[in-house]
Amino acid sequence: MVTAGNSHPAAQEPTGASPRIVVVGAGFGGLAAVQALAGLPVEVTVIDRHNYHLFQPLLYQVATAALSPADIAWPIRHILRRQKNTSVLLDAVTAIDRQAATVMTEGGRSIPWDYLVIATGAHHSYFGRDDWEKNAPGIKTIADATSLRQKILLAFERAEGESREDERASLLTFVIVGGGQTGVEMAGAIAELARHSIAEDFRVIAPGSARIILVEAGPRILPSLEEKLSANAHATLQKMGIEIMTSSRVEDVDADGVIVNGQRIAAKSVVWAAGAKASPAGAWLAAPVDRTGRIIVDRNLNIAGDARVFVIGDTAAFTPEGAEKPLPGVAAVAKQMGIFTAKRIRALVEQRQPPENFRYKDVGTVAAIGRNNAIVVLPGLKVTGFIGWLLWSVSHIFFLIGLRNRASVMLNWAWNYVTWQRGARLITSEDPNKKDQ
Amino acid sequence: MVTAGNSHPAAQEPTGASPRIVVVGAGFGGLAAVQALAGLPVEVTVIDRHNYHLFQPLLYQVATAALSPADIAWPIRHILRRQKNTSVLLDAVTAIDRQAATVMTEGGRSIPWDYLVIATGAHHSYFGRDDWEKNAPGIKTIADATSLRQKILLAFERAEGESREDERASLLTFVIVGGGQTGVEMAGAIAELARHSIAEDFRVIAPGSARIILVEAGPRILPSLEEKLSANAHATLQKMGIEIMTSSRVEDVDADGVIVNGQRIAAKSVVWAAGAKASPAGAWLAAPVDRTGRIIVDRNLNIAGDARVFVIGDTAAFTPEGAEKPLPGVAAVAKQMGIFTAKRIRALVEQRQPPENFRYKDVGTVAAIGRNNAIVVLPGLKVTGFIGWLLWSVSHIFFLIGLRNRASVMLNWAWNYVTWQRGARLITSEDPNKKDQ
Repeated sequence: MVTAGNSHPAAQEPTGASPRIVVVGAGFGGLAAVQALAGLPVEVTVIDRHNYHLFQPLLYQVATAALSPADIAWPIRHILRRQKNTSVLLDAVTAIDRQAATVMTEGGRSIPWDYLVIATGAHHSYFGRDDWEKNAPGIKTIADATSLRQKILLAFERAEGESREDERASLLTFVIVGGGQTGVEMAGAIAELARHSIAEDFRVIAPGSARIILVEAGPRILPSLEEKLSANAHATLQKMGIEIMTSSRVEDVDADGVIVNGQRIAAKSVVWAAGAKASPAGAWLAAPVDRTGRIIVDRNLNIAGDARVFVIGDTAAFTPEGAEKPLPGVAAVAKQMGIFTAKRIRALVEQRQPPENFRYKDVGTVAAIGRNNAIVVLPGLKVTGFIGWLLWSVSHIFFLIGLRNRASVMLNWAWNYVTWQRGARLITSEDPNKKDQ
Repeated sequence: MVTAGNSHPAAQEPTGASPRIVVVGAGFGGLAAVQALAGLPVEVTVIDRHNYHLFQPLLYQVATAALSPADIAWPIRHILRRQKNTSVLLDAVTAIDRQAATVMTEGGRSIPWDYLVIATGAHHSYFGRDDWEKNAPGIKTIADATSLRQKILLAFERAEGESREDERASLLTFVIVGGGQTGVEMAGAIAELARHSIAEDFRVIAPGSARIILVEAGPRILPSLEEKLSANAHATLQKMGIEIMTSSRVEDVDADGVIVNGQRIAAKSVVWAAGAKASPAGAWLAAPVDRTGRIIVDRNLNIAGDARVFVIGDTAAFTPEGAEKPLPGVAAVAKQMGIFTAKRIRALVEQRQPPENFRYKDVGTVAAIGRNNAIVVLPGLKVTGFIGWLLWSVSHIFFLIGLRNRASVMLNWAWNYVTWQRGARLITSEDPNKKDQ
């Protein structure tokens, strides 16, 4: 089975004529592509820097102590264990040689491919102010979410032990930058945590009095929805005691707070939900990228002039014909791109006519706005309020992978709903007294 | 409510005559003491370096990916939220001034007390070879358990990508040092993980072929049980394919393995379950300690000549009258000591005659030896095998705090039982390719 050298054994086996397909990234797009290649007489290698596929839409619930990481993540290997044409490699890509058709990894491997699928996602973007990241972390990975959970829970702990009034107020002020879906969901979840889950647990502070401020640069929150739904969400958040600042730009972030519209807001906890920047795949492939680093792909999701290389999901800038802007970086787009890519590769391998021209079929948008309230926009249906929230809950449980995760999330939500409590309130750092910096 | 300075506000309030009781550590002992003080007109302050109470007996299941940290931990504040005479402080003690009757903390606080309860537990002991800790981590905290989980899961991942046969064998060898309860439970859980949960998930390696070696310095494993039960456990573990080395001493540990009885065993994963060393409370109090650092306490759990200071749980060396050795560091002993201490303090505060002479009431021992098998020794009852395992499961669920944790652990165990799967197989470090050191 195993050859000499430090390469990945599975990828190096002599294979006769089997085409080799390398998929980089096992998020929604990459995983959909791999699963749609099942049964094909090819050798698929999936490379991911994590050993798990992550259900990112619920990451904010890990950050606010409602769910455990294991509820929304699943070992990639385990998902693909029965797909015998596929091996999984825990490693990170560092470079791609298109001439030699190989991928180079941090682990020192060099993996050859006949078809390459790039599905490496996006990170936060600080619009050139990467120094803000330290004080205004985002939520893209499990590590992000658990360290944010720790930061939020520690803020209340420190406030309880703090005797200076202004310091205490600053510890009890939470600023969320970005009024898109993640920002809105985080603001709602922090409000529920402070006003309900931990309201009784302290002796000196009243966690319910925490200030939660949502800052949005544009004129309204949830700008991807129509105006009426934005206004509905705005009113709901205000009723939950969240201060909303629209048309407001964050001009600076430091350890003690933010400057918004020239005014300083003292806040020890700042959460970044404002911008995304694609992975560095554009540089690996020397391909043209847009302003946010996404690789500009053609009608078939290939990089220009190279039908062997596909780019999908948040890493791709694909503008449908007649549309003004590229498709958004959401799970449904990534999944459909993954499936289209697999169909094309399957046809090419089987020497049939491949499908042409990727078309996104809109499956709608959902956003939770606190307890009992969500906005659901499906083709031909708009629901808000409690019914929206039920639809939101059911759809999220449905899309989770695996019976255990579904049951565990259901259990946690049911318990949370009845008791207002959050089960994962753990500060797991070994240094509770380490100061913020 | 709040006074000037950097002290803990709750502890500094002017209180008239209310006696101040400081409890350091919210493990089984400390928490039992605090809860038994409910309703008394005193001011209780609990200090812990973590924000959670941990159900340590199931920590090995977090280390082997069966449970999530949040399943076995609970915010101390939340447990005590209704106990109005008590405040909780997230901080770590650095020194104790018995003259001034204050406790000093890492957070710079100085907290006065009239009664002091030390319940700070124990850490691993490497018998003077603290340099071994890096390569042979123990399991006392959630951080220990998640980093061990990562180490074990990464060993399989690395083996899958490793082409050198001897390196691969070394990655697939797991040495557990210490044949007490923790060591036995860890060995059984790693065997189940390798032989069942992940058996199908790899393409190059066969995880089921992993070597699992349990090393015990004494003549038999589970030495606290009677010989017949030890032998029973020994046979069960062997049937699970675990190699057991008794009367075997670990002479060295490094990144590549261990030396046992002069022979090198190449193993990338070594788990330490061999020894305990009490917290440094003996030094804080300048009190006499035994060989493992436990403070020698009198009949009433006080340090000699100071009826204000109690030491309980794993930090205390208490030898019952007529017994040869001190009570073991287990949950039941800690809890009973906590309750006795609270009763004494309650009587002293109420100026009644306090109870004298702590007596431990044996409640039995339980140890899980893999799936479907546990040893349960209750006063007047010995059960092994499947019935033992059922009793073990029920008793552990019963002792967990909170309905959510009980339901979540039950769900995970049921799922695990039916599918042989483990739900928390997450490698959460950001650097999967970092080498062992």
